[in-house]
Amino acid sequence: MAKTKQVYYFGKIRCDGDRELRDLLGGKGADLAEMVRIGLPVPPGFTITTQTCSDFFNNGETLSEKLLNVIRKNLKQLEKETGKAFGSTTTPLLLSVRSGAAVSMPGMMDTVLNLGLNDKIVQELSKNSDNKRFVLDAYRRLINMFGDVVMGVDHKHFEQAFTTIKQKYKVKNDIDLDEKGLTELIEQYKTIYKKHTRQAFPQDPFKQMVLSIEAIFRSWNNPRAITYRRISNIEGLTGTAVNIQTMVFGNKNNQSATGVAFTRDPSSGNNEFYGEFLINAQGEDVVAGIRTPNPIEEMLHWQPKLYKQLLKVKDKLEKHFRDMQDLEFTIEQGQLYILQTRTGKRTGVAAVKIAVDMVSEKLINKKTALLRIPAQDLTQCLLPSFIEKEKTDVLTRGLPASPGAASGYPVFNADEAVALNSKGEKVILVSHETSPEAIHGMKAAQGILTSTGGTTSHAAVVARGWGKCCVTGASEVEINEQTQTITIRGKKITRKDIISIDGGTGEVMLGDIPKRAPGFSKEFKTFMQWTDKVNILGVRANADTPRDAKIAREFGAKGIGLCRTEHMFFGEQRILAMREMILAENEDNRRKALKKLLPHQRRDFEGLFRAMNNLPVTIRLIDPPLHEFLPQDRPTQQQLAKTLGISLKHLKNRIEQLHESNPMLGHRGCRLTISYPEIMEMQVTAIVEATINTRKRGIKAKPEIMIPLVGIETELTYLRTKIEQIINQVKKRKRYAGKLDIPIGTMIEIPRAALTADQIAEHADFFSFGTNDLTQMTLGFSRDDIGSFMPDYRDKHIYKTNPFQSIDETGVGQLVQMSVKRGRKTKPELKCGICGEHGGDPDSIMFFARAGLDYVSCSPFRIPVARLAVAQAALKKN
Amino acid sequence: MAKTKQVYYFGKIRCDGDRELRDLLGGKGADLAEMVRIGLPVPPGFTITTQTCSDFFNNGETLSEKLLNVIRKNLKQLEKETGKAFGSTTTPLLLSVRSGAAVSMPGMMDTVLNLGLNDKIVQELSKNSDNKRFVLDAYRRLINMFGDVVMGVDHKHFEQAFTTIKQKYKVKNDIDLDEKGLTELIEQYKTIYKKHTRQAFPQDPFKQMVLSIEAIFRSWNNPRAITYRRISNIEGLTGTAVNIQTMVFGNKNNQSATGVAFTRDPSSGNNEFYGEFLINAQGEDVVAGIRTPNPIEEMLHWQPKLYKQLLKVKDKLEKHFRDMQDLEFTIEQGQLYILQTRTGKRTGVAAVKIAVDMVSEKLINKKTALLRIPAQDLTQCLLPSFIEKEKTDVLTRGLPASPGAASGYPVFNADEAVALNSKGEKVILVSHETSPEAIHGMKAAQGILTSTGGTTSHAAVVARGWGKCCVTGASEVEINEQTQTITIRGKKITRKDIISIDGGTGEVMLGDIPKRAPGFSKEFKTFMQWTDKVNILGVRANADTPRDAKIAREFGAKGIGLCRTEHMFFGEQRILAMREMILAENEDNRRKALKKLLPHQRRDFEGLFRAMNNLPVTIRLIDPPLHEFLPQDRPTQQQLAKTLGISLKHLKNRIEQLHESNPMLGHRGCRLTISYPEIMEMQVTAIVEATINTRKRGIKAKPEIMIPLVGIETELTYLRTKIEQIINQVKKRKRYAGKLDIPIGTMIEIPRAALTADQIAEHADFFSFGTNDLTQMTLGFSRDDIGSFMPDYRDKHIYKTNPFQSIDETGVGQLVQMSVKRGRKTKPELKCGICGEHGGDPDSIMFFARAGLDYVSCSPFRIPVARLAVAQAALKKN
Repeated sequence: MAKTKQVYYFGKIRCDGDRELRDLLGGKGADLAEMVRIGLPVPPGFTITTQTCSDFFNNGETLSEKLLNVIRKNLKQLEKETGKAFGSTTTPLLLSVRSGAAVSMPGMMDTVLNLGLNDKIVQELSKNSDNKRFVLDAYRRLINMFGDVVMGVDHKHFEQAFTTIKQKYKVKNDIDLDEKGLTELIEQYKTIYKKHTRQAFPQDPFKQMVLSIEAIFRSWNNPRAITYRRISNIEGLTGTAVNIQTMVFGNKNNQSATGVAFTRDPSSGNNEFYGEFLINAQGEDVVAGIRTPNPIEEMLHWQPKLYKQLLKVKDKLEKHFRDMQDLEFTIEQGQLYILQTRTGKRTGVAAVKIAVDMVSEKLINKKTALLRIPAQDLTQCLLPSFIEKEKTDVLTRGLPASPGAASGYPVFNADEAVALNSKGEKVILVSHETSPEAIHGMKAAQGILTSTGGTTSHAAVVARGWGKCCVTGASEVEINEQTQTITIRGKKITRKDIISIDGGTGEVMLGDIPKRAPGFSKEFKTFMQWTDKVNILGVRANADTPRDAKIAREFGAKGIGLCRTEHMFFGEQRILAMREMILAENEDNRRKALKKLLPHQRRDFEGLFRAMNNLPVTIRLIDPPLHEFLPQDRPTQQQLAKTLGISLKHLKNRIEQLHESNPMLGHRGCRLTISYPEIMEMQVTAIVEATINTRKRGIKAKPEIMIPLVGIETELTYLRTKIEQIINQVKKRKRYAGKLDIPIGTMIEIPRAALTADQIAEHADFFSFGTNDLTQMTLGFSRDDIGSFMPDYRDKHIYKTNPFQSIDETGVGQLVQMSVKRGRKTKPELKCGICGEHGGDPDSIMFFARAGLDYVSCSPFRIPVARLAVAQAALKKN
Repeated sequence: MAKTKQVYYFGKIRCDGDRELRDLLGGKGADLAEMVRIGLPVPPGFTITTQTCSDFFNNGETLSEKLLNVIRKNLKQLEKETGKAFGSTTTPLLLSVRSGAAVSMPGMMDTVLNLGLNDKIVQELSKNSDNKRFVLDAYRRLINMFGDVVMGVDHKHFEQAFTTIKQKYKVKNDIDLDEKGLTELIEQYKTIYKKHTRQAFPQDPFKQMVLSIEAIFRSWNNPRAITYRRISNIEGLTGTAVNIQTMVFGNKNNQSATGVAFTRDPSSGNNEFYGEFLINAQGEDVVAGIRTPNPIEEMLHWQPKLYKQLLKVKDKLEKHFRDMQDLEFTIEQGQLYILQTRTGKRTGVAAVKIAVDMVSEKLINKKTALLRIPAQDLTQCLLPSFIEKEKTDVLTRGLPASPGAASGYPVFNADEAVALNSKGEKVILVSHETSPEAIHGMKAAQGILTSTGGTTSHAAVVARGWGKCCVTGASEVEINEQTQTITIRGKKITRKDIISIDGGTGEVMLGDIPKRAPGFSKEFKTFMQWTDKVNILGVRANADTPRDAKIAREFGAKGIGLCRTEHMFFGEQRILAMREMILAENEDNRRKALKKLLPHQRRDFEGLFRAMNNLPVTIRLIDPPLHEFLPQDRPTQQQLAKTLGISLKHLKNRIEQLHESNPMLGHRGCRLTISYPEIMEMQVTAIVEATINTRKRGIKAKPEIMIPLVGIETELTYLRTKIEQIINQVKKRKRYAGKLDIPIGTMIEIPRAALTADQIAEHADFFSFGTNDLTQMTLGFSRDDIGSFMPDYRDKHIYKTNPFQSIDETGVGQLVQMSVKRGRKTKPELKCGICGEHGGDPDSIMFFARAGLDYVSCSPFRIPVARLAVAQAALKKN
C-alpha cells in the first residue's frame, strides 16, 4: 500500500522518503530526503512519485482531483514548516518545481523557479521589501521560465525583449537593469506570454503549480528525453518524479551566492574539492555561463565559516553516499542550503582513481569498487584524448566508431596514406566507406573518417581492433576524390588543411586540436589486478600480428581467441601472390602462388607463438570471399594485369565471375577451403612448421586451428580429415618427434550450426561463437545496410539496443545457449568461447558468463573492459 | 549369414534369388531370378552381389581369392546346365557381363558381351561352324567392347579401323563385310588393343571375366555414375551387382532376332504392346540405332508363334509385377529368351493413364496407384512438350529450371520482349541473369534462357509460378547485347534465328521444334479426385493475378496462400507511380504517388476475391527492397527523370542511396512498411475496400493480411495496431455494417522469428513459413550465389540435396517444427502454412505433413503435384 502514496514530504517536521526509494522518488527526490535524514540543510518540500507520472499518462494527461488534494495537504505542511504561505502577499511561499527520474538525465527534463509570484504579491512585496529589484527580477524570471518550459513559448522572444530594454536603458548586463526597466520588462514579458499562449499569465499560484507539474510529466515523453533514454539504453522506468521545494535565493544580495561542486576532481579523480560559485546569483547563472564563476577555494576568503561548513557537508556526503558527489548549494543571506546531490559523472581515469582511493580510505570494499565502474569507461584510460576546451571549430559530427583522438592531413587513397606515412606525415584516411583492400592505408593513417557506414562497419571493427581512432557515417562530409577536397556544410577542406577527429564523440574539427596522452596509472594497474581475482571467464584477444599480440598480452589477454589469417595477405608482396592464386586457371598454378605465401604466413605465426608463449593461439583459416582481394579500381587493375602478364579482360572477367549478390552469404569461410583445399593446405602447413620451428627454439607454441562458417557437420569432417593429414605429413617431413596436439575446432556463426551443435561437436575440439555473423543471419540483418532503418527501429522501440553492439539474448543468445548445451551433451569437456565483437561488450559478457562459456575474445584495446566486465559478471553471479 | 553369400545362381537347376533381394542383387539380378522363378525363358547365369562391390572398394580394388573360387563353382554349375564349357574350343560357353544396381541407372554402367572367345576358340569354331562370319563378328565385337569398356581404349580407334576396312572392301554396312575383311579387322583390333593397353588381348577366358567384373565394379564410381546419382538423389546404395549370363545370339542367322518392348505405351500409357525388333541383330544394334528396327507388331507376320509367345510373356510379366514392364528379348534360331525386365520409365501422362487403367483392371488398388507415381511427374501432364524425335539440332544444355517447351526469336531486353509480343511475335528472353525489373519481359516471352543462375534463381521461381518454360545456367551461351547475337560453341545465332528451349531437359535447340499440346485426360481427373479422398493438408496457390488464381482453382487450389502484392506494381502506369513514390522527398509526396496506385491494387484484389470466391486469399504486404523498382540502365533512367521532372543526378543519388551490400538482408519486408507506414496504409486500404466492394456484390471475399520478414514481435505489434486502425477507418468511411474479420498473420522466414515463435504467436492469427528466405538465413546461403560452390558440395557429399529444392529437415526443418510447437503452445488454434518454393516439392511436403502444418501453398502449376504429394504423405503416415 505504501506504493500508492503519491506524494512524499521532506523537511524537519517530517521526512517520508529515503534513498532506497529511487525508483519511486527519482534520484533527486530520494537524495533530497536522504540529505534531510542525515541532517543537512535542505530547503523543505515534497516529491510527487514517478508512479504518479505513469498514472498521468494513463489518465489522459490530467492530474486527478485526489492527487491535487494530497498536494494541497503537503503544501499546508510546507507552509507550517516555513512559516510562509503560498499566495500570501506578505510572507509568500515561493517554490521551485523540478523533474527527477530514477536515473539522472542531465538537461533532459525541465525546471521552473520562483513559482508562487503574481502581480499582486510583487506589488505588495515591492512596497515592503528592502530589495524591490530582487522581487521584480524574480518575477521576470518566473514569467520567462514558466512561459518557456511550461507553455512552450520560445525563449528567444523573451531574450529579444530583454535585449531591447537593455539597449533602451543603456545597460550592458542583466544585473544592471534598474527597477523601472524591470517593471517595463515584466509588462512586455506578460504581453509576449499572452500573444503566444492566447491567455494571460496565470495569477493563481496553485494553477501555476498544476500547469508546471503537468509540463514536467509531459516532458518525460518529449523527443529529447526519448532520444536520451534510447542512446543511454535507459529502460524500465515508469516516469519522472516532480520535486517541489521551497525557494532559497542566492541572488538576494551580496551575502548570497550559489555554486556547484564535486567532492573530488571528476576529471583526474584526485581527492580535491572541485567546484565553482557565484556571489549574488541564481543557480542557472552558473550553468548558463553568463558570468564567469569563481573557483570554490575562493570561498575561503569570502566566507571562511561557510566554506568550512561546506567542506563538512562534502565529507558527510561522501561518507554517507560512499561515492563522489556532484552537489548544488545556495547561500541566502549567509545561510547555506544544499539543493541537490547526486553521484558525480567522471572520466574513466577518474573513475579508477576514485574507486581505488576509496578502497584505501576504507569507504568501500573492492567488490563495490569493481562493480561501480561501467566497464565501458575503461577504454578512456587507454587512449589519448582531445583537450575539450580546445575543440573550437567543430565542422560536423559522425558516429563515434572507435575512440581516440587523431589529427592529420586528409588523404583519399590507401596507397597514398602509406606513402605519406612513411615520409612521417600524419594523415586521416577519408573515404565513402572502406574495404579490406584499404586495410594498409587504415593502418598507416592516424585515424579513419568515412561518410557512410555504422559503428560496426568494417572500418570501425578494424579500427577498434587496433585502438585506432575512427569516425564513421559522417554524412555531411562530401568527398570529391578528383579535386582531392572535402566539403562540409559548404566549407571546403583541401589536402593542406589539418583535420582532427574525435572517435569518442564523432566530432570532426578543423585544425590540429591539442591532445592529452594516455598512461597507465598505478591505480589502473591495481584495479586490473583486482579483476583477475574474481575471474570466471578467460579473456583472450582478437589479434593478427605479433605487435597486436604483444599489446594484448600487456593488457592481460590469456591467449589469442581469433587470429584472422586473411589480414596477413594484404602486405605488398603477399597481396600479389594472393591475387596470382585467385587468378590462376588451375590447381597447379594456384599451388605455385600459394607457395610464395607460405613463408610469410609461417613467419607471422612464429611471431604470434613467440608473443603468446605458453598461451593458446586460435588461428582461423581464410574467411572472406576471394573478390575482396582483387582490386576494384581501373588503374590498379591495369597494373595488376601487367604485373601478372595477363589480359585486363581476363582479370575483369574473373572479377565479374566472383561478384556476388549477397557476399555475406556467399562463397567464403570453409566453403572456400572446400572448393580450394590447397589454400587450407598452405595455411595448415605454415601453422605446423611454425609450431615445430618455435618449439625447437624453446617456445611453448599452442596453436588451435579454427574452421569458419561451418553450417553442417560434413563440412567439418571433410576439412578435419584433410587438416589431420597435412599435420601428419609435415610432422613426418620435419622429423618432429614431439607430440603435435593441435586442437581443431569450429566457429559457430551460422544458425544451422547452432541448431545441429550436437552433431558438429562430434568432430570439433572447441566451439567459438562468431556472434557478428550469427546475429546477421539469425536476425536477417546485414551489418553494412542496417543504417537505413535501424535508427528508425530504435525510435519506434522495435529493437531496444543495437544487436551488433549488445547481443540479442532472446534470439541470438538462445542459439548460443542451445549450442553450448547440445555441444556439451555430445562432448562434456567441449571448450566454448566467443570471438565476435560482442566479446568486448560488458552487457554481452554478462550473458556469456550465464551461458557457461569458457572465454571471451576481443580486440586488444577492449581487453581491460572485458576483464572488468567478466569480474562484474562473477560478482553479480554470487 | 545369407547376406555374406557373394554369388546367387539363377537357372533351371537352381535359383538362389528373387525380386525381394533388389538391394543385394540389383534390380536386374533380382528380376532375372524372379523371371526364372515364374517360368520365363531366361538364359541361366549368376549374380555377384552389391555387397561384394563395396568389399571390392574396401579391399584395395581387388577381387579376393575366396570370391574367385565361388565364381568358379557357379561357373561349373552353369556349364552343367548349358552343356557347354567356358574356354572349350568345341562347345564354348559364351557369357555377357552386365552391371545392375538396386536402382536403375540407364546408360550409367557398362556391359561386355561374347566373353569367353579367344583366337583358338574362334579358329576352331570357324572350322566347324556353319557360320564362320558370325563367329568372327562376335569376336571383333568382344575385342572392341572389352577394349573400350574394360580397358578404356577409346571406341573411336576401333571405329576408324572398321571404317577403313569397309572402304577397302568397298562395303557400306557393317553386316556386309565378309569373312576375310572380318579376319583382317580382328587383327587390326588386336593391334589397336595392344598399342593402347601395352598388353595383348587376354586369351584366358577367366581372366577376361575377372577384368570385366573389376571394370564394372569400378564403373560404380566413375564420374558419370556419381553425377547421375547426385542428379537423381540416389543414395544409400552399397554398389552395383554384376550379372553374368549365358549369351544367346539374335544375330546368329535370319531365324534369330533381338528386341526391346514395353508392356504398354510408355508415352501415352495406352494398353498397347509397344516395341521394336531387329532380325539377325544383337541387342546393342537396336539401342545404337545403326539399323532402323521394325515395329513389334510386324513379328506377327515374321514369326506368329513366337509373337504369341511374347504376348503371353508380356501378360505374365504385368500380372506378376503389377506394373508396366520394359523388357529385352532375343530370339536365337527360333527360340525366345527374355534377357531383362524392369519397371518401364514413362511420361507423366502415361503414368496417370496406366495407374488408373490398372485400378480398373484390378491389377492394383488406388493406394498403390497413388503411391506409385512420383508426384513430380505430374507436371508433365500440364505442359506442352517437344516431340522428342524432332530435337535435331541441340546446341547446348542448361539447367531445366521450369518445365515446358518454348520457341521464339531471341531478344535481350525486357521492353523489347513486350513490344514484339504485342505485335504477335514469339520471343525467348535471353539474358545473363534476370531481375524483378525484367518481369514484364519474362511474362511477354515464350520462355526464358539465362547463362547464369540455378534452378531456384529469380527467373526460375517466377517462371515456375507462371508455368513458363525456363532454362537457366546455360553457361555455354555467350551473349553479346551490342551485336544482338548469341554464340554457342562457336555457332552464332542472330535475332532472325528461332531457337527452342526445353525446360524439362535444359536443352537449347536451333529452329522451331514441333510441340505436343497438353490436355487433361479423364484418367488425370479421376486420379486427382482420388488424391482429395486422402488429403491431410490443404493445398493453396501462390498467385498474384486473377488469371493465375483461376488456373489455380482449376487445378484444385483451396485458396491463395501467397499473393505477392509487389508484382502488381510492375504494370506500365503502376511502375511510374511506384517510382514517383520512391523518389518523393517527403511523406506527403509519397502519399500522392501511392494514391495513384490505390485503384490498381483495389481492382487487382477485387479480381482475386472474385476468382477465389469463398476461399481464403492471403495477401502479403510489399516485400522487396525499393531499389528493385528503380531502373538500372541509363536510357530508362534518363526517360524516368524526364517524366518525373527531376534531375538525373537526383535519381542516380537516390539509386546509390538505396544500394545495399547484401540486399537479401536489407531494407525490405516489414522493415519497409515500418519506415514508410503510408505504403502499408495504401495496401490495407485497397484490401479492405476491395473486400467491401466485392462482398456487396455477393462475393464471399476472405482476405488474410500477411506481414513479411518479421524477426521480432515488436515489428508485428507495431504494424498490427496500424493495420487494425486502417481497417476500422475504411469500414467506417465506407459505412460497412458487416463483420470485417480479416486475420492478420506473419511470415516466419527469419531464424529469430522461429526461435521466438511463442512471443510472435501472441500477435499473429496465422504463421506462413517462407522457407526460401528461412533456408537462406539458416544455412547462410544466398540463393543467387550458391552456384559457385553447390555443385562441388554435392560432389563432395557435403549436402545430399539442394536445400532450396527439398527442405533441409535437420536445420531449417528443425526451426519449422520449433515454430509450430512454440506458436501453438501460445495459441493452440494457430493456423500454420508454408508458401516457399518447398510447398511444391514432394519430399518437403512429406516433411510438412509430419510437422503438423495445415496447408502448403505453391505455384498454380505445381498444385497437382502438391495434391498428390499430400495424398502420398497421408498414405505413408497410415
